[in-house]
Amino acid sequence: MIIQLHKNISTENLSVIHHTLEKQKYSVTSVNTQFENYLICIGKNEIDIRSIGHLKGIKDIHRVSDSYKLVSRKWKTDYTKIDLGNNIYIGDGTPTIMAGPCSIESEEQVAKIVGHLIKNNISIMRGGVFKPRSSPYAFRGLGIDGLKMLYEQCKPNNIKIVTEVMQVSQIHEMIDYVDVFQVGARNSQNYNLLDALGEVDKPVLIKRGVSGTIEELLHSAEYIFSKGNERLMLCERGIRTFENIYRNTFDINAIQVLKDKSHLPVIADPSHGIGIREYVPKIALASLFAGADGVIYEVHEKPEEALSDGQQTLNFMESELLINKINAVKSLLN
Amino acid sequence: MIIQLHKNISTENLSVIHHTLEKQKYSVTSVNTQFENYLICIGKNEIDIRSIGHLKGIKDIHRVSDSYKLVSRKWKTDYTKIDLGNNIYIGDGTPTIMAGPCSIESEEQVAKIVGHLIKNNISIMRGGVFKPRSSPYAFRGLGIDGLKMLYEQCKPNNIKIVTEVMQVSQIHEMIDYVDVFQVGARNSQNYNLLDALGEVDKPVLIKRGVSGTIEELLHSAEYIFSKGNERLMLCERGIRTFENIYRNTFDINAIQVLKDKSHLPVIADPSHGIGIREYVPKIALASLFAGADGVIYEVHEKPEEALSDGQQTLNFMESELLINKINAVKSLLN
Amino acid sequence: MIIQLHKNISTENLSVIHHTLEKQKYSVTSVNTQFENYLICIGKNEIDIRSIGHLKGIKDIHRVSDSYKLVSRKWKTDYTKIDLGNNIYIGDGTPTIMAGPCSIESEEQVAKIVGHLIKNNISIMRGGVFKPRSSPYAFRGLGIDGLKMLYEQCKPNNIKIVTEVMQVSQIHEMIDYVDVFQVGARNSQNYNLLDALGEVDKPVLIKRGVSGTIEELLHSAEYIFSKGNERLMLCERGIRTFENIYRNTFDINAIQVLKDKSHLPVIADPSHGIGIREYVPKIALASLFAGADGVIYEVHEKPEEALSDGQQTLNFMESELLINKINAVKSLLN
Amino acid sequence: MIIQLHKNISTENLSVIHHTLEKQKYSVTSVNTQFENYLICIGKNEIDIRSIGHLKGIKDIHRVSDSYKLVSRKWKTDYTKIDLGNNIYIGDGTPTIMAGPCSIESEEQVAKIVGHLIKNNISIMRGGVFKPRSSPYAFRGLGIDGLKMLYEQCKPNNIKIVTEVMQVSQIHEMIDYVDVFQVGARNSQNYNLLDALGEVDKPVLIKRGVSGTIEELLHSAEYIFSKGNERLMLCERGIRTFENIYRNTFDINAIQVLKDKSHLPVIADPSHGIGIREYVPKIALASLFAGADGVIYEVHEKPEEALSDGQQTLNFMESELLINKINAVKSLLN
Repeated sequence: MIIQLHKNISTENLSVIHHTLEKQKYSVTSVNTQFENYLICIGKNEIDIRSIGHLKGIKDIHRVSDSYKLVSRKWKTDYTKIDLGNNIYIGDGTPTIMAGPCSIESEEQVAKIVGHLIKNNISIMRGGVFKPRSSPYAFRGLGIDGLKMLYEQCKPNNIKIVTEVMQVSQIHEMIDYVDVFQVGARNSQNYNLLDALGEVDKPVLIKRGVSGTIEELLHSAEYIFSKGNERLMLCERGIRTFENIYRNTFDINAIQVLKDKSHLPVIADPSHGIGIREYVPKIALASLFAGADGVIYEVHEKPEEALSDGQQTLNFMESELLINKINAVKSLLN
Repeated sequence: MIIQLHKNISTENLSVIHHTLEKQKYSVTSVNTQFENYLICIGKNEIDIRSIGHLKGIKDIHRVSDSYKLVSRKWKTDYTKIDLGNNIYIGDGTPTIMAGPCSIESEEQVAKIVGHLIKNNISIMRGGVFKPRSSPYAFRGLGIDGLKMLYEQCKPNNIKIVTEVMQVSQIHEMIDYVDVFQVGARNSQNYNLLDALGEVDKPVLIKRGVSGTIEELLHSAEYIFSKGNERLMLCERGIRTFENIYRNTFDINAIQVLKDKSHLPVIADPSHGIGIREYVPKIALASLFAGADGVIYEVHEKPEEALSDGQQTLNFMESELLINKINAVKSLLN
Repeated sequence: MIIQLHKNISTENLSVIHHTLEKQKYSVTSVNTQFENYLICIGKNEIDIRSIGHLKGIKDIHRVSDSYKLVSRKWKTDYTKIDLGNNIYIGDGTPTIMAGPCSIESEEQVAKIVGHLIKNNISIMRGGVFKPRSSPYAFRGLGIDGLKMLYEQCKPNNIKIVTEVMQVSQIHEMIDYVDVFQVGARNSQNYNLLDALGEVDKPVLIKRGVSGTIEELLHSAEYIFSKGNERLMLCERGIRTFENIYRNTFDINAIQVLKDKSHLPVIADPSHGIGIREYVPKIALASLFAGADGVIYEVHEKPEEALSDGQQTLNFMESELLINKINAVKSLLN
Repeated sequence: MIIQLHKNISTENLSVIHHTLEKQKYSVTSVNTQFENYLICIGKNEIDIRSIGHLKGIKDIHRVSDSYKLVSRKWKTDYTKIDLGNNIYIGDGTPTIMAGPCSIESEEQVAKIVGHLIKNNISIMRGGVFKPRSSPYAFRGLGIDGLKMLYEQCKPNNIKIVTEVMQVSQIHEMIDYVDVFQVGARNSQNYNLLDALGEVDKPVLIKRGVSGTIEELLHSAEYIFSKGNERLMLCERGIRTFENIYRNTFDINAIQVLKDKSHLPVIADPSHGIGIREYVPKIALASLFAGADGVIYEVHEKPEEALSDGQQTLNFMESELLINKINAVKSLLN
């Protein structure tokens, strides 16, 4: 059960509500986000909503049978739209495009890609500076310096930045340079990181774990939301199956199911989803027709020279063709 | 190595070729299809193609490094187009739609669905009469009588029939009433059935096994082709993964990979691919944008009363909306 | 619901029972096996068993909530013991060992392996003559001649033969030379084959499909049992997972779950279960400690020269060590 | 390539080695552990080991073709034995037993379980105080107070403590009360945590991710080792597959493959591996026969009242039976 409270509820009224719920043996979690104040109430007794609904300070009450609550569409049927500033929105009905290199490598590399984005009217850039790598001996990214490098070129061009955060201690140093924090697949159930991102007022893009279920992804989002951050989006990026011709199996089914179960925007990552450059554009298009709110993909001037993920990264021409194609079908998506 | 022979090759010239290959310790399989005569030659020695190419009776020679040969796109880069008669083609660049009930249930049911197909200009009907069911106590289909029932209503309307064959002994009784034999997911590696379908001059639609790899599907097609039947199409119908919110995980990646590795048409089955009615249309559209040559889906006047698979079957209105949508995007597919 | 009938039930009494069940809208399947006559009754109404139990000709009635019935342990809590003759049993509390080559190759090969089995007191030999192979160009076994070759050497030595049957039409030619029909993983849901094996009075070993669920395996066994053959055993042989260091992932969990859900013996196939020779013996032992009634594994005089599966086949020394080890731990298994 | 250095190598000699390797375009990582000093050298040039081996300060050089190096058995063929003090070892050839509750709940609960361990001569206790839970609203453990509670009762009884650490900031507060840090399945690729545990001189037990490959697990161990901590053990705890009758599919194959690829001890977790109480003991035994160096399982006085994982937790009687069984077969394990 979710109780939406009036912002200016008196402590007296609040304690009456708490008291009433405790009598019913409900455990209550207070959630105060950027936008609203909620009580999440979990218990086994059947409560007649009307016995609570009249209490002072309550704006609305919703029964939510899912084990995740705040991210469920059972209580919030309108889809969430995320405002990144400068008239850039995610989940507003037009497909969002986020593109950029796997890793930030140099000022020159960033400049080239920023140029490509500007040319094609793309206003969100991805780019990793803290890179989770299977081997401890592999390139792990340029770190915070890479992020500043990215920021210096994106900021003046009104290009928003989405980049991965790997641990709690990085949040503070990154926050001024980031528009969307990305939680990577490997950290999809790193609950301490999720908790910490709940206390930050920046949008978060949460990638599904490599073998994460739909339910687990929604619970991970619930972790963040329940700590106070409503500005969330979910990302399907392929799952691990028995088939190993491709790096991952892009789970196109997940898009609609996520849109059905949750009010959060859903972004598709075709680059990781199939992991083979020449197939990325069609998976991107397919995912939009399956209902995704946007795509995030990897682009690099010379993919074959990229420090990571080159085999799944588009070059500028391929990227431009994809963008044009998306623009051509845009009106047919809904 | 694939050797294409002249149709009228003399036995003398043929035996020279065989002799030459045997000297190189190649095992040779003769394949005579509806259209061509081939020799499939497998061996470990590196052969200089020129040392054979000049032999009389040889039309062309192709090196194919894949372990499947005849279905590979390495030697036949043009895509295969299948002619079903009455100007109905599969793989001709326009999306094919095949629709119909999971099971044939009654003349009345067939009449209703045939009416729906005619109204919407759909010229291929699916419908099962031999049903593989997990439980021996479940409805197993109307059998050959159901097929005749289907035929009587489709034939006069120039509607082609695709239906599943489960065992070798059924082929003979079915053949006069069938336009496309379907091999179901559970029989995807039933090699005796595949062998037998290779000796028949009817198109075959081969479904990927529930956990069949891309390679296994191509090898299954190779079984049929190598027995003499070139008129084949492949079908992606969802795979088994850890995610169990949906019946299967539609593997959208497979479509492009199959189109890349093989010259055979690829059909998508969104009904089994996700298994939940309201999501079927978007998966259908997505699969066409991913490159599928067509879709096969389940439709029934009253899905909730269908004897099988009702939960994934569209009703007439949903089906019509999907057909209209496909027609609307048709021109943007390539 | 399973009704056990008296063998000599009068047609009159039988029709009373049928009539009573029909009135309750139960569908009834008659099952007559080597040992018993049953009625399998499926319906939605709650029936008070006592309202039927007093009818003449009924020996016993059992409610079975599982969707598989006859193979369930809910009605038959004693485990099934299969008598192969010559005092050879499966499921009698001592671990059964079945060993032999992947494929029968020659009289000489068979002689060597029969010698190895005799030396080590192993009384069941495996060996394939109809081989399902991914590629149509691979060695497909010696066929019925290979089986006769096997029989001629096994029969005089009281060694029982387990070998795979791939299609209905093979049953008749094989039956005189076979002690246990094996259904391979790829045919685990070949329902026509299962039906046909239900009409034969020879034990059947059913392998789990490569991605077959426990439930599906039990339903496959139910197919055979419900056609009249009670002498069945189940075989765990590894499943397909994301891990591809080994050919399959041996599902040790399945053994106990199968023993819990069904009264049928469970055999472990460590050769396919891990697919790497040096690891086979430990998986064999582990599976016995997990509760398997026996093991089936591949052995060959010179595995590296075997025509198929050499990489997972033990040589005679490895096989002998395994047998000795099994004998050494035998008394600790229960 | 791994170079083992003499402990007292001079900076001069060290720089000669570095210089020589740089000339060959090798990247070099210095690793200084509790026991040894190493250089990990990665490059593409083929180096003749003899051209380096004679340099001063080098104790030994090993070529390791695996992408993980220090945890590979290619250079260290002797298995690692971990000394926990008080004559308690892991990997010494006798099976280690670690048992305890899923979560630490109260002093009374701990006392009961410690009593059970003492009675049965078990000297390592597991017990979670920081609990990763799918839902943010579930019980997340008693935290550091729970750990102190555990310590107070284990320390005087010479019982060693293994407990999960979830994030870097917890290491410092936990370290005085912990004998073995456990990295949970969800944090198996939390590289920052792994890095931090490499800088600590306490043994670490690393659980395989829920869909982690063998290679990924070994790379996770390499992360820790390469930061300076050699005292590591690996834990197989079941993987995610299509089968959902059980919580996870215990991957018995993994045990031998890990023992073959790495010199680190391998512990089996049958509680998570199958997730159903009555089956846990047989999986425990099977895993020891498959080659595991020990088992870790969940035990509680009243599993049905446990705050978490009750369905897979043994009661005292079941636990005692298992321990007795392990003792009975101990001598047959190798």
